[in-house]
Amino acid sequence: MKKNILVGQSGGPTAVINASLYGVIVEGMDHLDEIEHVYGMVHGMEGFLKDDYIDLSEDLTQKELELIRLTPAAYLGSCRYKLPADMTSPVYPTVFRKLNALDIGYFFYIGGNDSMDTVSKLSRYGARIQSPIRFVGIPKTIDNDLMLTDHTPGYGSAAKYVASTVREICLDASVYNQPAVTIIELMGRNAGWLTAASVLARKQESDNPLLIYVPESVFDFQAFSEDLSNALRRQPSVVVCVSEGISDSSGRLVCEYNDEAKLDNFGHKMLTGCGKVLENFVHNHFGIKARSVELNVSQRCSGLVSSAADIEEASLAGAFGVQAALKGSSGTMVAFSRVSEEPYALECSMVDVDKVCNREKPFPSEWITGHGTDISPEFISYVLPLIQGEPRRPMKQGLPVYAFRKS
Amino acid sequence: MKKNILVGQSGGPTAVINASLYGVIVEGMDHLDEIEHVYGMVHGMEGFLKDDYIDLSEDLTQKELELIRLTPAAYLGSCRYKLPADMTSPVYPTVFRKLNALDIGYFFYIGGNDSMDTVSKLSRYGARIQSPIRFVGIPKTIDNDLMLTDHTPGYGSAAKYVASTVREICLDASVYNQPAVTIIELMGRNAGWLTAASVLARKQESDNPLLIYVPESVFDFQAFSEDLSNALRRQPSVVVCVSEGISDSSGRLVCEYNDEAKLDNFGHKMLTGCGKVLENFVHNHFGIKARSVELNVSQRCSGLVSSAADIEEASLAGAFGVQAALKGSSGTMVAFSRVSEEPYALECSMVDVDKVCNREKPFPSEWITGHGTDISPEFISYVLPLIQGEPRRPMKQGLPVYAFRKS
Repeated sequence: MKKNILVGQSGGPTAVINASLYGVIVEGMDHLDEIEHVYGMVHGMEGFLKDDYIDLSEDLTQKELELIRLTPAAYLGSCRYKLPADMTSPVYPTVFRKLNALDIGYFFYIGGNDSMDTVSKLSRYGARIQSPIRFVGIPKTIDNDLMLTDHTPGYGSAAKYVASTVREICLDASVYNQPAVTIIELMGRNAGWLTAASVLARKQESDNPLLIYVPESVFDFQAFSEDLSNALRRQPSVVVCVSEGISDSSGRLVCEYNDEAKLDNFGHKMLTGCGKVLENFVHNHFGIKARSVELNVSQRCSGLVSSAADIEEASLAGAFGVQAALKGSSGTMVAFSRVSEEPYALECSMVDVDKVCNREKPFPSEWITGHGTDISPEFISYVLPLIQGEPRRPMKQGLPVYAFRKS
Repeated sequence: MKKNILVGQSGGPTAVINASLYGVIVEGMDHLDEIEHVYGMVHGMEGFLKDDYIDLSEDLTQKELELIRLTPAAYLGSCRYKLPADMTSPVYPTVFRKLNALDIGYFFYIGGNDSMDTVSKLSRYGARIQSPIRFVGIPKTIDNDLMLTDHTPGYGSAAKYVASTVREICLDASVYNQPAVTIIELMGRNAGWLTAASVLARKQESDNPLLIYVPESVFDFQAFSEDLSNALRRQPSVVVCVSEGISDSSGRLVCEYNDEAKLDNFGHKMLTGCGKVLENFVHNHFGIKARSVELNVSQRCSGLVSSAADIEEASLAGAFGVQAALKGSSGTMVAFSRVSEEPYALECSMVDVDKVCNREKPFPSEWITGHGTDISPEFISYVLPLIQGEPRRPMKQGLPVYAFRKS
C-alpha cells in the first residue's frame, strides 16, 4: 500500500538546504511503487500545525526542481518551533492526527540540533503509540557542529564563502602602505568551524589573516594586544578573524564588552558584535586605523559562492534518508563518514537521532595552534574536499536565478 | 625616440582597477616603436615620491598579466595622497625630476575624483614648465559619481555584487513567517548609484527590497515609519536598502543619531553605521524583529561576483588612454559615452580632467520615485548592460586565484 512523504525545513537557512529537499523529492518520486505524494510543510512544523503544506510531487517541473536544488535559503520556509518535552502534551496527538489524515508514511526534517530534537520527540511518541510512520532527520547547519557525522551539509559552502571572501578582503586591506588592522567577524556562537575556514584565505605562508580566534579558546585582551603587536611588526596591514562567540576567561562574551555603550539617541539599546568591540580596542590602544567587517548572513545564503561538492552531498543526504526510511529506519539521522582521505570518499549511514539532538561538536582543540591564534594544517586537509567545485548556475540579465514559492 | 610609461593606482580599490592596469600595460607594450618600459608606481604618488616603482613590462608573464586582469583591489597598491594646491611647492620639481630621470613620456593615474586632481595638477604644472610629458586619467570608482562619463569602471561589478547579494539576503530574510525588518546598508556617502542597484534584486514586481533610500533624498524618520508600516501590511518580512550617507532635512547624517551611544567599556567611542541606527529604531518603535547587514568592503573587492562587461570596459579604458596619450592627449580623462541603447554600445573619448576632478555626479532626481523610497525603471535600463557576464576565473582547490606583488 502506497504512503506519502512529508518533508520540512527548520532552523537557519543554508546555501544547500534546498539541495537536500531536492534529494528527498526526487528520490521519493523515484519510488512510485511505495510513494504516492511528496508533501512539503510550509514553515516547518509551525506551518504544518496550521495545515500549511504543498504538494511537491505534482506541480514542479524538472526545471523548477533543478532550480530549487541550486537556490539558497529555505524554499519551503523555516521555523524555530520546538515540541514540548512533556509527551502528554495535546500537540502530539494533534500532529499524528494530521499526519494520518495525509496518509504520511515517512517524515523528513532537514535541520540542525534543534530540528533533530523534533525528529527524536516525534519518533519516540510514535513508538509509544505504535505508529508505523518513520521519522528521519537530514542534517543541515553551516556551523558543522552536529555529532556523529564527519561534517554537515551547508558547512562546505559557508566555509568556501568565508575563505574566498576573507581572501578578497585581505587583498583590499593590503592596498595602503600604512599600519592598519581589519577585524573580520564570522558566524559561530559556540563552535569555531566556520571561522577556522578563514585559514584557507592565505595565498601563501605568513599571509593574512595573521590571527584567527575561535570560541573554543579563551580570548584574552592582553594576549591579543601582544599577538597583534608582533603581527604589526611583520607587516603594516594585519587582518584578524574572530568568531562572533569568543569570550574571556570568565566566560564573558567579547561582544558584551560594549554593555555601557548601548543607548542610542532615542535612549535605546545599541547592540554590536565582537568585531566592533575589537575594532574600537585596537583603535584606542594602538592609535592606528582599525575597521571591522561582519560577513553576516551571506555566510549562510550565498548561492554565487557555494560549493558544488556540498550541493552534491546535501542532495545525497536527502536521497539516502528516503532510501533508509523505506527500508525501515526511524528515529535516525543521515550521517557522513569519510571512508578515504586521498582521494576523498564519503559514505552515508544512519545514526541514532537521540545521540545528535541538543548536543554540539566543538572544533577540535588539537587543531588550534599558536596559543589560540592559528589553525593547524590537519584542519586544512579536513576541510578542502568540502569546498571543491562551483555549480553551473543559471543566470539571467547578469543575475542569479533563484526559485521561490509563489504565494 | 622611445619613452617610458608610468602608471599608478590611487584611492579605494575596486574589482576592476587592475583590469585598467592590464589595459595600460598591454597597450603600452603593443607600441614597441614608441614605448620602452611600462613602470608601475607602488602605492601611487606616495610610493613614487619614495622611488618605489616596478617594471611591469619586464617580469610579468602573459599568464600573470591575465591573472592581474581578473584580480580585485589594487595590484600596485594605492594611496590617498593629494598634491598641494600651491604650485610653487617644492614637491612639483621633485616629481618632474623623478619623472625625467625615468625618461617618462606618458603618465597614467587610475582613480576617482581625488586622483583626477593629481592628473590635473601635474598636467598644469607640466604645461607651465613646458614638459613634454602627457598626463592622462583612467576613471575608476564604485560610486559612479564622476562627471562627463556615462559611468565609471568599477561601478558595474559593485552594482552586480549589490544586486546579487541583496537578492540572496532577501531570500534569507523570507524564511520565517513572522514580522521582521532587515536593513541593508550599502556604500555611498553622497551618491546613491550603488544603493539604487539594489532595485535589481527583486525577483518579481512588489518583491523585496520594498524600500530603497539614497542620499539624494532627505531621510525623514516619520515618513520612514509610515512607509515601513505600509510595507509590513503587505508582507511579514520587509527588506530596506539604505546608502551609508543618508541624512535628515537638517543635513544630519542618520549614522550620527547614535552620538550618545558612543562609549565602550574602555570609555571610548563606538561608531556604527546608519543601518544599525535604523535597526534600533525599528526594533524599538515597531517592537518587531529587526536586524541590519552592512555589505561593507566586499562591494568593492569581490572578484567572485564581478561583471565581465565591467572588466572588459575597464581594460578598454586603460588601452584607450594609452592610445590617446600617444596621439598627444594630456590633462585629460578617458570617458565613456553610450552611443546606442539597444543594443548597448559604448564609445571612448577624452574629456578635460579639470572638469572632472573634485566634483561629483549625483544620482538623477528623476530616477528617484515613490517619494524617495523607490528607483525608476529608467535606471534599470541604464544599469543592466553594466552588470552582464561572468568572467572565467581561475580556481585552485575550490578558491579563486588572485595575483599579488611578491615582496
